[in-house]
Order: sequence, then C-alpha cells, then structure tokens
Amino acid sequence: MIQDTREYTVITGASSGIGHETAKAFAGRGSDLILTARRKDRLEKLKQEILSLNPECDIIIKIADLSEADNVFKFYTDVKNYPLRTWINNAGVGNYSSVWNQNLYKIGRMMRLNVEAVTILSSLFVRDFKDVKGTHLINISSSGGYTIVPNAVTYCATKFFVAAFTEGLARELKESGAQMKVKVFAPAATKTEFGKIANEVSEYDYDSFFDNYHTSAQAAEFLIRLYDSNKVVGIVDRENFMFKLCSPLFDYAGNSQYNQKNKVNDEKKNRSNVIKEHI
Amino acid sequence: MIQDTREYTVITGASSGIGHETAKAFAGRGSDLILTARRKDRLEKLKQEILSLNPECDIIIKIADLSEADNVFKFYTDVKNYPLRTWINNAGVGNYSSVWNQNLYKIGRMMRLNVEAVTILSSLFVRDFKDVKGTHLINISSSGGYTIVPNAVTYCATKFFVAAFTEGLARELKESGAQMKVKVFAPAATKTEFGKIANEVSEYDYDSFFDNYHTSAQAAEFLIRLYDSNKVVGIVDRENFMFKLCSPLFDYAGNSQYNQKNKVNDEKKNRSNVIKEHI
Repeated sequence: MIQDTREYTVITGASSGIGHETAKAFAGRGSDLILTARRKDRLEKLKQEILSLNPECDIIIKIADLSEADNVFKFYTDVKNYPLRTWINNAGVGNYSSVWNQNLYKIGRMMRLNVEAVTILSSLFVRDFKDVKGTHLINISSSGGYTIVPNAVTYCATKFFVAAFTEGLARELKESGAQMKVKVFAPAATKTEFGKIANEVSEYDYDSFFDNYHTSAQAAEFLIRLYDSNKVVGIVDRENFMFKLCSPLFDYAGNSQYNQKNKVNDEKKNRSNVIKEHI
Repeated sequence: MIQDTREYTVITGASSGIGHETAKAFAGRGSDLILTARRKDRLEKLKQEILSLNPECDIIIKIADLSEADNVFKFYTDVKNYPLRTWINNAGVGNYSSVWNQNLYKIGRMMRLNVEAVTILSSLFVRDFKDVKGTHLINISSSGGYTIVPNAVTYCATKFFVAAFTEGLARELKESGAQMKVKVFAPAATKTEFGKIANEVSEYDYDSFFDNYHTSAQAAEFLIRLYDSNKVVGIVDRENFMFKLCSPLFDYAGNSQYNQKNKVNDEKKNRSNVIKEHI
C-alpha cells in the first residue's frame, strides 16, 4: 500500500547520464523515486547506491522501452496512482550524421522517444496532476533545441519540438491558473553515453571532440536549480558554458484576437475527446 | 516507360488545400506531377481538372496514408525512379486543443505525419537527388513553426520541428556544395480543410475565427515565389499577413570548432550506415 506521506519523482532514462545523477540529487533532497529505463541491472545498481545513502527513500523500478507508444501508455498507467509530485522526461537519444547519411531506423526510434513519448507522458501527467499543488513537469531539451547544430540537424529538430512544446505548455498552464509548474532544461555538451550512442562508437572521448563540456552531476545540479527557481527555461550557453535561468525564449502569440476566439472553442470541449482505449 | 524529357514534381497531401492548388500551379508551369493523398476520388478529380487545362501534363496518382512509416517508405520506393525535380512535403494535420484536453490518438497520428513522414521523405529524396541540378525540396511548416500559438501548442511544436529540420538541412546541403535547394514555407491562417480537421467539426467558418486569412490559391502563389527565389524561408507574418522571403530564422552554430571536428567524423561514415530493409 502506498503511504500518503510519500511524494514521488518520476525520472525516465534513469540508467545513466543526467537521469542517473538527477535521481541521486532528488533522493538526496528527500524525494521518493520512480525510475524507468531499459536496463534493469543499471537501475538495480543505482537503487542500491541511493539506498546506501538514503535508506528511507522508496525507489520503484520500471523496465520499459519508451520508444514504443504502447509501452509509454502502459508505463503511465502503471505509475499514475502513486502520489506523484515531479515528472522528469529525461529519456532521449542523439544522432550525429548529415541528413543524407542518417540511419532512418535509428532516426525513427529517436523521433518516437524524443518527441512522441515526451508528448504523451507530458499530456497525461498534466491532465491528471495539473491542479495538485507543488507538482512539476521538467522536460529535457538541449541547447541544440534553440540553436541548430550542423551534423545533428534531425536531433536538434526533435529538441526544438521539446523546447517549443514545453514552453507553450508552461504558458498555457500558467494562463489557466493551474498549480503545476512546467519547465524546460537545455544542457549543452554533457559527458554521458550520448556521445557513444549518437556516433555509433564503442568509445567516445569528450576531451577530443569538445573544448568544454559538463559532467552529468553538474547538469543534474543545473536541473535542480531550475526546479527551485520560478523560471521556465534553464539553458547552458553553447559559447561560454554558463548556465542561466530565464523566461521562455521562443516567440509566443499570446495576445491576438484569434486566440481568444479559439480558447472559447477549447473550453467547450470535454474529456469525451480523450480516446479511452489507451488509458 | 518514363520519358527522359519529363520532370516530375511530387506533392504529398494534394487532395485539398495548399497541396491541391500547388499541383495546379506547377502543372501550369509545365511540370509533370506525382500526387499522393488518401482520397482517390479527390485526386482523380484534380487530375481531370488539370488535364483539361494542361493536356500534356503527365499526372501519376498514388494513394497512401503517410501517417504510417511503412507506407512512407513504400511510397518513396514507388516514385524514386522517376526523373524527380521537386519534392513538396505538404501533407500535414493540425489540432486545436489545450495540451491536457488533447486527443492522444489524433496527436500520435499528427506527429507521425507532420514530423516522421517529412523527415523520412526529406532524407531519402536528398540522399538520392542532392547532386541533380535544378532539384528542390520544399517542406511546409507554418508561421506557428516560428511563433507558438496557444491552444495549438503540440501542432506548433511539430511545425517548429519542420522549420528547424529544414533550415538545418538547407544549410548543411549548401555547405556541402550540393545542387539541391531546400526551402521552408510557413503560411499563416489559410482557408483549407485544416480548420475542420483541427477543430473536429463538420463546418468551420474562417471569417468568424480569423480577422485575416489567405486562400489556398494565394498560399500556392507564395510557395511558387519561394520556389523561384534564392531564399530559404518564405513566411507569412502573423500580424499583417504579408508574405516575405528571407534567410533562415533560427540560430545556427555554424562556426564552432566542435562542428569541424564532428564533420570529419561524418565523412568517415558511409552508406553502410543506412538500414537496407526499408529501401
């Protein structure tokens, strides 16, 4: 039985990198955890590591490949009845290639994980928890979600999607008077498994490819600063590697007459709109 | 047998709206056409309409639902051996809803059509035709792909994806010295079936929801102006409804040392990278 005093932080892609370090950071601040990734052994190891430092922490592990929409809906259904407070969509993959050389099988998986899973999980979490005080949704975009990087164009496009979606959602929720805070985290180069996977190599030396990068622990620290702040965006400047907290960066058509007219239309809609077969 | 003198323009989503009018415009300029959409009767009617005005035009009709990746690969395989000159990724759907009310089944289909199909078709067309003189790829984004519109946040995010992907691809191709020109078209409100589908209503009165909008024929005219220009972006200003041609609008990290290092890495890759099962 779930205790009412517990408050869970969900972290996707927690088996390595920024997700792994963020899990430790939230446990260190007294949060219970629901962690998901594909690799059970990694999550079990992380669980033991956290428990040795934070024995009261309740850590729930869910093994899922979120690059398949069915798994995404199932994962949400599995966890939605816990007293969730924070949801961090961290799972994502990268790809370095020109558009004409890119492996379309890998790119398809990247789009489903970086774009579709983030959209589904954000929509469901906001639908169910937006009026619960103290709730947060943090989506991980990238500095490449605000500045296009050559040889990573399709990856950047997925992160532009995440940045625009999350900024827009943050504004919509604020305008609706909801309790939930929605934020977008945009790290620059961070030493994780990203380099190996994005380049399809077994070893990747960040020192030889980047003049500067952050560690996963530094990135998790930035994410915590974003969480603690009242700002919507936390971004690492690609040029000087400084982290800054700021208001949404993309243009927003908040005041046009059109929006007021269509808002009325949305309010007429109700939950019947929602396809029941999945949830 | 395909005649060597023919030169085809591929238009996805040609059964209505901007795609429909763009087909007529390209036929009027002497191009042969490959048109795809789900609705055969609409495409057959358009074919007869075009042939009555342009009897020499060769018009090939392909029925396909491009919201399924398998259909997207099959469609490309079906048409890639024609002497293609221009490819216009016009097929797309919209959705008006707050994120928390949105129908996730519809949103999933929107992401696969607006994001995944555009990425697959762009990548394949560029791979095969980038060194052919006179070739063009035009992807249809939206003014909502540069400015987030409330109550259409997820739709806008798909169009941010298209805009960032296409701008980045245009720059990558230019830097590589390829022949193909890549451009992004970003219309604002245009009177098409978009309003009905995005709002899930049987009738949609553009006059009551918009102070200003363009007709599909006007939008097709703008698209032709973009095609004829040397600019990468053709965008309708949401405020004054003026169409302008311009350079890429998003930030681009073109000169950093990192990019030079990773470019070498990409050039080492070869086509073995490409999954063969689909093409």
